[in-house]
Amino acid sequence: MSSSYGLHRVLEPVGVLPQQAWRLRTDPRAWPDEVVLDVARLNLDAASYRQLREQHGSPEAVREAVLEIIETRGKMHNPVTGSGGMLLGTVREVGPESPLGLRVGDRVATLVSLTLTPLRIEDGLADWTGETEQVPCRGTAVLFGRSIAARLPDDLPDELALSVLDVCGAPALTDRVVREAGPGASVLVLGGGGKSGSLSLVAARRAGAGRLVALVPTEEEAASVRAAGLADEVVVADARDPVGVLDAVGTPVAVTVVCVDVPGCEHGAVLATADGGTIVFFSMATSFAAAALGAEGLAADVRMLIGNGYVPGHAEFALDLVRTEPGVRALFERRERHTSPT
Amino acid sequence: MSSSYGLHRVLEPVGVLPQQAWRLRTDPRAWPDEVVLDVARLNLDAASYRQLREQHGSPEAVREAVLEIIETRGKMHNPVTGSGGMLLGTVREVGPESPLGLRVGDRVATLVSLTLTPLRIEDGLADWTGETEQVPCRGTAVLFGRSIAARLPDDLPDELALSVLDVCGAPALTDRVVREAGPGASVLVLGGGGKSGSLSLVAARRAGAGRLVALVPTEEEAASVRAAGLADEVVVADARDPVGVLDAVGTPVAVTVVCVDVPGCEHGAVLATADGGTIVFFSMATSFAAAALGAEGLAADVRMLIGNGYVPGHAEFALDLVRTEPGVRALFERRERHTSPT
Repeated sequence: MSSSYGLHRVLEPVGVLPQQAWRLRTDPRAWPDEVVLDVARLNLDAASYRQLREQHGSPEAVREAVLEIIETRGKMHNPVTGSGGMLLGTVREVGPESPLGLRVGDRVATLVSLTLTPLRIEDGLADWTGETEQVPCRGTAVLFGRSIAARLPDDLPDELALSVLDVCGAPALTDRVVREAGPGASVLVLGGGGKSGSLSLVAARRAGAGRLVALVPTEEEAASVRAAGLADEVVVADARDPVGVLDAVGTPVAVTVVCVDVPGCEHGAVLATADGGTIVFFSMATSFAAAALGAEGLAADVRMLIGNGYVPGHAEFALDLVRTEPGVRALFERRERHTSPT
Repeated sequence: MSSSYGLHRVLEPVGVLPQQAWRLRTDPRAWPDEVVLDVARLNLDAASYRQLREQHGSPEAVREAVLEIIETRGKMHNPVTGSGGMLLGTVREVGPESPLGLRVGDRVATLVSLTLTPLRIEDGLADWTGETEQVPCRGTAVLFGRSIAARLPDDLPDELALSVLDVCGAPALTDRVVREAGPGASVLVLGGGGKSGSLSLVAARRAGAGRLVALVPTEEEAASVRAAGLADEVVVADARDPVGVLDAVGTPVAVTVVCVDVPGCEHGAVLATADGGTIVFFSMATSFAAAALGAEGLAADVRMLIGNGYVPGHAEFALDLVRTEPGVRALFERRERHTSPT
């Protein structure tokens, strides 16, 4: 019997969930509640790609390493970083009991991690130079009953849509938390110039935030965020320096959203948040212990949330923000130009 | 000028908070908002003590190592585990601007971590054999304006009070979360037979929980929890086995409290929690990434909280639970007998 969590796809060790598994079964035939995709492109997680470049050096060696990981594990699950990424493809087959609402021919992006997605590569990654996080390829992937995928919109370029979908959990959860905090709640976004940060800023504004502060690391980034009109105040500080963060922010806020992807930002977030307030940690570089002991050590009565990448409706919500907020779209497009392959 | 966060006590690197600091200034004179204690006993964090035993072998070598850490760093901050513990002492001096409400002669336990508490040892730890987590000693320690200390109660033995205060954040936050979930909310405590777990169970009951489930690792522990009458259902499973946890719990619950101090319990907690529910992670072995990616990978719309060790009133709340719940008190006393030095 198939399991909506994909337990039937786990080869070893038996009994664990696909994400914890060492190796998955990748045969491209849909079990009753599965969907099989023809893969067109992988989007490797940034931390994973960086690690592979550092370990293997040349782009050719990186390509070989990715291929070997996928062939060995049946998924793109970097054994060092523990992270994966997402993929883009077209629906090939839909099992009769699939609850995902997809149809054959739909172009979709997966919103669950590659670390739990059965994946088979059929072209040896021949079209990829190994020089970019985006990996054009031919192959197949499997979605389970509980997996999440988003139809790619017709009105946005694929690369922009992928970029947005990659971080779409952040604005959706920010929306929820700011609404819970009540109308006019003050909000601080650490890393407000990045992808998840800029989306979180506009989500907070729409959710009724009052004072809205973006903290960024450089004057250059501050200028972009100001030009995009995303916040009431844009301040420059090192998010890893707690006292610097507090000085820059001034009066502590009701909600702090952490989108800075470097370690050591927990204490600044705690200091900048008023008693009774909430911190949402979206950065995968967050240390559980640093957050827990930091708040305790500062006798800070703050609610600290682990940023769950899944909130119902998150994909449409994020795409809609980019469609309707020219400032955010401009930031995303600028970033793409800066980081596009040369 | 002194800072309520203790910045004036940081020797290196300058500008960071005491917890992040490598070395603190320990001179036992109170700045205006400080309190100075005569230390009677350290209570080393269990993870830290275990690591020191594994690294150093003999009790004598452990004692030397602890002494060296304190002399080098000006605090008991294990550089490997990053953890500390708490201490017990008597108030020697109260600065004129201290907001803590303590008086000279008060016997107190610190509720902020030893990793941020300036500490000086004056007897070379001569009275400690190195064989226990509890370290009798003579010395001084400093509390800042924002530090937290609890007066030791007259009606409970010191060791019992220390044991309870060590985990007092868990029941207080459980109380808050269960009340937020509404009357009759179903609650699961992973590790319900331990210190924080048993306190969380009775806190959940008092906060109006409906169905109350304790998950424990062995039949023996299940028997203790049943005998103490702490839960409606006591189930036995390995908290690191997500499917086993779900099978044991059956219908997912509204609130899951994680008190199991081993890594790998995140996915079981996610599977056992209903959509719209809340998970509170108290275990310091929690992995931020495993929780965030696990919930996303399972498309689980759950709210995940980092267990903040500080909630206003947490010390009195926990002590009161032990005073008035004979079942919990019996579990604590049994545990003490089992782990007391031989």
